[in-house]
Amino acid sequence: MLGMKQSKLFSRTLKEAPKDEISANARLLIRGGFIDKLMAGVYTYLPLGFRVFKKIENIIREEMIEADGQELLMPSLHPKENWEKTGRWNTLDSLFRFVSHYTKMELALGPTHEEIISPLVKKFNLSHRDLPLYLFQFQNKFRDEKRAKSGILRAREFAMKDLYSFHRNEKEMEEYYESMKPRYKNIFNKCGIADKTYLTFASGGSFAKYSHEYQTVTSAGEDIIYICAKCDVAANKEIMEEKPVCPQCGSNDLREEKAVEVGNIFKLKDRFSQPFDLNYMDEKGENKPVLMGCYGIGLGRLMGTIVEINNDEKGIIWPESVAPFKVHLIELKSDNTEVKKEAELLFNSLARKNVEVLYDDRESVTTGQKFAEADLMGLPYRIVVSGKTLAANGAEVKGRREKEARIISLGDVINNF
Amino acid sequence: MLGMKQSKLFSRTLKEAPKDEISANARLLIRGGFIDKLMAGVYTYLPLGFRVFKKIENIIREEMIEADGQELLMPSLHPKENWEKTGRWNTLDSLFRFVSHYTKMELALGPTHEEIISPLVKKFNLSHRDLPLYLFQFQNKFRDEKRAKSGILRAREFAMKDLYSFHRNEKEMEEYYESMKPRYKNIFNKCGIADKTYLTFASGGSFAKYSHEYQTVTSAGEDIIYICAKCDVAANKEIMEEKPVCPQCGSNDLREEKAVEVGNIFKLKDRFSQPFDLNYMDEKGENKPVLMGCYGIGLGRLMGTIVEINNDEKGIIWPESVAPFKVHLIELKSDNTEVKKEAELLFNSLARKNVEVLYDDRESVTTGQKFAEADLMGLPYRIVVSGKTLAANGAEVKGRREKEARIISLGDVINNF
Repeated sequence: MLGMKQSKLFSRTLKEAPKDEISANARLLIRGGFIDKLMAGVYTYLPLGFRVFKKIENIIREEMIEADGQELLMPSLHPKENWEKTGRWNTLDSLFRFVSHYTKMELALGPTHEEIISPLVKKFNLSHRDLPLYLFQFQNKFRDEKRAKSGILRAREFAMKDLYSFHRNEKEMEEYYESMKPRYKNIFNKCGIADKTYLTFASGGSFAKYSHEYQTVTSAGEDIIYICAKCDVAANKEIMEEKPVCPQCGSNDLREEKAVEVGNIFKLKDRFSQPFDLNYMDEKGENKPVLMGCYGIGLGRLMGTIVEINNDEKGIIWPESVAPFKVHLIELKSDNTEVKKEAELLFNSLARKNVEVLYDDRESVTTGQKFAEADLMGLPYRIVVSGKTLAANGAEVKGRREKEARIISLGDVINNF
Repeated sequence: MLGMKQSKLFSRTLKEAPKDEISANARLLIRGGFIDKLMAGVYTYLPLGFRVFKKIENIIREEMIEADGQELLMPSLHPKENWEKTGRWNTLDSLFRFVSHYTKMELALGPTHEEIISPLVKKFNLSHRDLPLYLFQFQNKFRDEKRAKSGILRAREFAMKDLYSFHRNEKEMEEYYESMKPRYKNIFNKCGIADKTYLTFASGGSFAKYSHEYQTVTSAGEDIIYICAKCDVAANKEIMEEKPVCPQCGSNDLREEKAVEVGNIFKLKDRFSQPFDLNYMDEKGENKPVLMGCYGIGLGRLMGTIVEINNDEKGIIWPESVAPFKVHLIELKSDNTEVKKEAELLFNSLARKNVEVLYDDRESVTTGQKFAEADLMGLPYRIVVSGKTLAANGAEVKGRREKEARIISLGDVINNF
């Protein structure tokens, strides 16, 4: 829907932030009518928040398709045996485990999908001709988090994009891994957080020297990163404990910051293909282990991070790319019947021009409240139509970050969007 | 992606149907490379199946937006207390229940969302001005089914569209309920199953005389319906046991058929607003109970039903509206180097013309196998480019349901799509 009347919108702002919520992202998103908290770490995306969520999903999807990813959808219900095979059934405390009443099968709720995709790919008896292969999904993950105090930055149920890559050899795996870095940069760029987001060296586990996280600097972060003044990458705490220098350039000119991990890329090598016996037949007809990579982005976490670094004392300031609507058109109460007429005309022209517009047509709401709510909701542009603006034969236009509004003649407003 | 080369497609057909699968939909969908079975009642949608799934989702979404629905997304993790309030925590055997390791909270996996949306809507303190209100989502549901032998017709985890409507009075609820019938008809029409799908009278529970199911006649159905020869609606078994006549016209000229419930619409009245104290303030400032309706469609079940009634001995026959691709372009092995060149030209022209095309460019596959796989996958149109067709300066075009192919000149093929 390009145009929506606010009188019909289910999402609405709250006068006060919920008392039991300490994180800025959840306080702002709940007050703005974007999300609702069902219980700690579990949230509903209301119509306004759902629009943001879908825009983020589409930004990520576009890049994954560019990266030759094929989209699929794996289940959340996982059989115990898959998790036993990798030894993670007992070691992963965050795994929700339970038993089916009828079948008595032990099940887990997927916190990630290596245990599902590896045996799935094995079923297709790959040959060298079928590789490399890139598969991704947007799927809900479930993690029984010890603490869930960071709003949608750390939820117990959350949507994630996970791409898994399958390769014939290390060189191919390395090349794809490197090619994913500019893709991730594009995504964070489009979401308006690139300038605060650092490629961060992390441990590569037992198989690779390094993996990489994408860490966005914000006081809401639960992680600590060390940003190198020389080469503008960062290292996480784990890396620092090993050796307190930047892994890229060796410099020790490092600045400590709190940050949120908004994405990660990881060379899995044969960590999962080995337990599931995932091989391919090479040119000589010999069986070789498939090497894997994985590439994750949490959608809620990304949305929460965008909010953490794009807000002021009045509310959220959405980057245009992910804003639920581009324009907040506000009609003020007036004795002049032309006000409603002109506002409706503008609403229709904007929608016709494919501009996403939320039209505050509510009659029982004061001017002050309309402005306060608009700031809270944080759409990129506000257009006000009132008796005063019509006296100047115009509408008042203001960017969410701008201090001053300007009057633009009615005939010309549409050309600004 | 409009065009896809089959050499790159992860989904692939299997020579034989899986031995442990008895339902036709699962056998055909697994053999065709559309889905994979993780365990009984739990399936992965592979890239080819995922495309069908998304098309069905979009057909439904379009109608729900037309019905003024606002999309949101509720969680799958539900707190016990919500289910205790409606008395369903203990009575619903299909509820997956478990305990969080860390918080010790008792949780359920949502099999439906009345228990979540009713208290959610209550939080917004509705007045008469806010009603009616229509909210919908596409969300995974979880049901601990006793038996799951019908493929994706009865899964333990499945995507569902559920719309909930909120009303001021019975008249408003009734009107919206009636307005949903043509919407559902549109959906089943677009999915190519309308002619076998019957509006079916079902029990309205303790609050309404009737609710309605949409039942599609197929031998795979787990339900029995009774179709009235006079008025072309049906009644389910429950209704028949009460009184063996058609509830619409009173006729007893009824024909018994097996059928699958592909959707349902239900007047909930205050069944859920009452336990959650969901009221609205009327024009006089008095609190009145909100009346509710709910409207469900299972996406996997709909997809499975489409397959059950659209197949032949060779495989699936997708209706064009939900086919993963419209055209299957097949290049046959040839000494004539023009074959590959012309096939690639055609592939590019089709994609440029926004025709979704799967291009079988594989070199190590025989002609017989290519044709057999194409029939199994069931795309609406097959275009073959071979030495033989080029000798006739054309390509061979055949509809999946057609017996005979026809040669169309190369320059003209594109105009047929």
